[in-house]
Amino acid sequence: MNPSRALTFARARRSKFVSELKEFLRFPSVSSQPERAGDVRKCASWLAQHLQGIGLERVRVIPTRGNPIVYASWEGTKNRPTLLIYGHYDVLPGEPLAQWNTPPFSPTVKGQDLHGRGASDDKGQLFCHVKALESYLRTARALPINVKCIFEGEEEVGSTHLLPFIAQNKNALRADAAVISDTKRLAPERPAISYAQRGGLRAEIEVRGPRQELHSGTFGGAVLNPVQALCEIIARLHDEQGRVTIPGFYDDVREWSEKERAYMARTGPSDEKILQDAKVEQGWGEAGYTLYERTTIRPALTLNGIAGGHYGPGVKGVIPTRAVAKLSFRLVPDQDPERIGNLFREHVARITPSAVETLVRTLSPVQPALVDRNHPAVRTAGLAYKKGFGAFPVFLRSGGSIPVVNAFKESLGIPTVLMGFGLPDDRIHAPNEKFHLPNFYRAIDTSIWYLAAAARTLHGSSRVGRAEQLERERSA
Amino acid sequence: MNPSRALTFARARRSKFVSELKEFLRFPSVSSQPERAGDVRKCASWLAQHLQGIGLERVRVIPTRGNPIVYASWEGTKNRPTLLIYGHYDVLPGEPLAQWNTPPFSPTVKGQDLHGRGASDDKGQLFCHVKALESYLRTARALPINVKCIFEGEEEVGSTHLLPFIAQNKNALRADAAVISDTKRLAPERPAISYAQRGGLRAEIEVRGPRQELHSGTFGGAVLNPVQALCEIIARLHDEQGRVTIPGFYDDVREWSEKERAYMARTGPSDEKILQDAKVEQGWGEAGYTLYERTTIRPALTLNGIAGGHYGPGVKGVIPTRAVAKLSFRLVPDQDPERIGNLFREHVARITPSAVETLVRTLSPVQPALVDRNHPAVRTAGLAYKKGFGAFPVFLRSGGSIPVVNAFKESLGIPTVLMGFGLPDDRIHAPNEKFHLPNFYRAIDTSIWYLAAAARTLHGSSRVGRAEQLERERSA
Repeated sequence: MNPSRALTFARARRSKFVSELKEFLRFPSVSSQPERAGDVRKCASWLAQHLQGIGLERVRVIPTRGNPIVYASWEGTKNRPTLLIYGHYDVLPGEPLAQWNTPPFSPTVKGQDLHGRGASDDKGQLFCHVKALESYLRTARALPINVKCIFEGEEEVGSTHLLPFIAQNKNALRADAAVISDTKRLAPERPAISYAQRGGLRAEIEVRGPRQELHSGTFGGAVLNPVQALCEIIARLHDEQGRVTIPGFYDDVREWSEKERAYMARTGPSDEKILQDAKVEQGWGEAGYTLYERTTIRPALTLNGIAGGHYGPGVKGVIPTRAVAKLSFRLVPDQDPERIGNLFREHVARITPSAVETLVRTLSPVQPALVDRNHPAVRTAGLAYKKGFGAFPVFLRSGGSIPVVNAFKESLGIPTVLMGFGLPDDRIHAPNEKFHLPNFYRAIDTSIWYLAAAARTLHGSSRVGRAEQLERERSA
Repeated sequence: MNPSRALTFARARRSKFVSELKEFLRFPSVSSQPERAGDVRKCASWLAQHLQGIGLERVRVIPTRGNPIVYASWEGTKNRPTLLIYGHYDVLPGEPLAQWNTPPFSPTVKGQDLHGRGASDDKGQLFCHVKALESYLRTARALPINVKCIFEGEEEVGSTHLLPFIAQNKNALRADAAVISDTKRLAPERPAISYAQRGGLRAEIEVRGPRQELHSGTFGGAVLNPVQALCEIIARLHDEQGRVTIPGFYDDVREWSEKERAYMARTGPSDEKILQDAKVEQGWGEAGYTLYERTTIRPALTLNGIAGGHYGPGVKGVIPTRAVAKLSFRLVPDQDPERIGNLFREHVARITPSAVETLVRTLSPVQPALVDRNHPAVRTAGLAYKKGFGAFPVFLRSGGSIPVVNAFKESLGIPTVLMGFGLPDDRIHAPNEKFHLPNFYRAIDTSIWYLAAAARTLHGSSRVGRAEQLERERSA
């Protein structure tokens, strides 16, 4: 099927597409805040109706014990391959609200950017594919390839219910490859395909001290303070070289070949670029690795938040009863989240002073993931990028985690093409998140090209076992 | 003046006195929360009206740049000494509200205890003296001694405006001794007089990291985390022996004689008693000192609270922009709060990693204070206790700070009798604060006895310079 009519359609509809994306962004579909569950469901219904409206079939809102999964498909051609398109319609909280220039759930166009929570991660990016599908369906009443769309509402909280859903619906979800746009490009003119994702594990440490708040004059100096104890435990999680000190933490970390590291140095962002994206003056972390390596092939332990005692306005001279820290592990091949969780638990127990008690909770384990750069589904994406963006993509490793990539490999036996449409300065997970609109338009074109090209190259190409083996050999 | 009619009056009015105290406790006169300023002012008006009603004279609500000072006096007898009675009508916040069995500002009698914020610290204790004055004024239309009452509304935030007020009103406040009931007794049947208070200094450390929140997947491992940096700074404030590691911190700490330490061991609470009061199993702190010594003749550094990043429900994979800790120094003779503040500032600057920025704020400096145990005003208090409680008091050091004690010594040249009516388990500064009612009644009797006895013993006895010198000699 020639994509030219779909491309013409899409280009004529740009302002309408932006209006529709704004509608989508207006739902505060925050999966980590239980009080937003109603908004998450409304957002799922809106998305399902939208998919129905553009001509997809078998549209369903599938309830789970958590947030619903939105499913839609088009399987109108028997002898063509099937592409699974994944995205997530849930978003992170808007807090801290005071740091937004426009409210997070009042999407606003400023210059060439659309501002709003989810604009890039991931409503905007999944919408590129939806609009590509629409452009074919409205012009040809058909797609060049069979498609199954699966849009979840719990990516930001670990895809808890999607992963078992995939395992239980292997036949229904059968496909030749999956595509996910939930990653970033190097620059507007430098598209990128992510071929590696770090895994992850969330954890909380709670330190419990006195059963009741104590006057810090009366008891200060005689009772161990849980805030102090928590700080001392956290301080003992890294050494002065920025390495994690949990015994056994690095045991399973894969060492990459000089060739792979040289490839990374050639294609990946420089230290200066990463610092510029982060808007910080100075890097930090494990000695002996570039910042790109520290955020991709090396694991990390990050504090996400801490609270204890009296931290509001004013003063309160107390020894608090408890203090809690939230943290995230970012894991790399071949670290196993469960084993890391156990090592962490044991380490915290070992360094907890006897005068307080610690509780460790872990959640949302995600395995690290790798995709073969030479798989046809990936190579085809390169061609589509060349058409849509005028440049071949670079192959990048990502620092974050998309839990579903492993599920697609393990349950469905298919590779995932991580076709990033975001930009490094999109401020995902931060105030003033935005999506660059020229990027949005080119990404729709790219998806249109990809659907046409994948119809020719994908068939029978699913051989993830072998690809994975090659990847391992390369790194040996 | 014979106290018997006053005593009879007080004993007949107990339930009325409790009702009045409940009225007083109902005001949420929280000085550390700016939004409570109106409630603080209402509480001051109520107290002034109450003092007017019992027959005191020259009652005024004196505005300051902060909360008002309530003043009242009775100077009806020319050739008798003058006693200054100090108390504070401001209280700490009720938070954390969930831990209260009854709301903090809905005073409730349970068994023999009156529960509510301020029941012991300090509304309940200052009210003992008010009710003693009332008992004389209603039965004899006179007091045995001249009295000046000064009740402030900023004790819990460092007495910021009271201290200059005292310095500027030396003549108006002239007296022979001051009495403060804002400390605790050892047990219901063991009254105590505090002869030493630790000084104090509040501080905040703020660590500033990235200018915006960063995705912890994308940047985790390459950017120093401000929560982690704050924890590492806090961990470096104590060594493993529980000593504060700020260079120079112990330089001016007075070493007490073996005789004084033996006296403390004889009269003061045991380690077991202190742990039991705190309801903790295990002590902590500077090796080589008992828990009583650690909380009185040794300085301490206590974390009051900490916050940074995302600490609400749910997860948020970010590197936060900042983190803040609040802490209190408890200081002993001859440490100077200002010098300690400077040492702290320099130490934090020295140990701050170059990848983040720290800001240190200090406030509410309070000098440590000592009172001669042999001053007539103190000895007379011992006799009054014997009458009111049936036992002579023990002389104790306190761990907390009452900033005004120094001001009375330095501006007015008078000693302060720290006549504690609280109990160790009153849960001051904590949820479910209470005042033991039998204690309240005996404290009123004790104050009645003290007013009569001080009239005979105080005159011309003000010689704090010499007393202070003796105290220093004793410790040499």
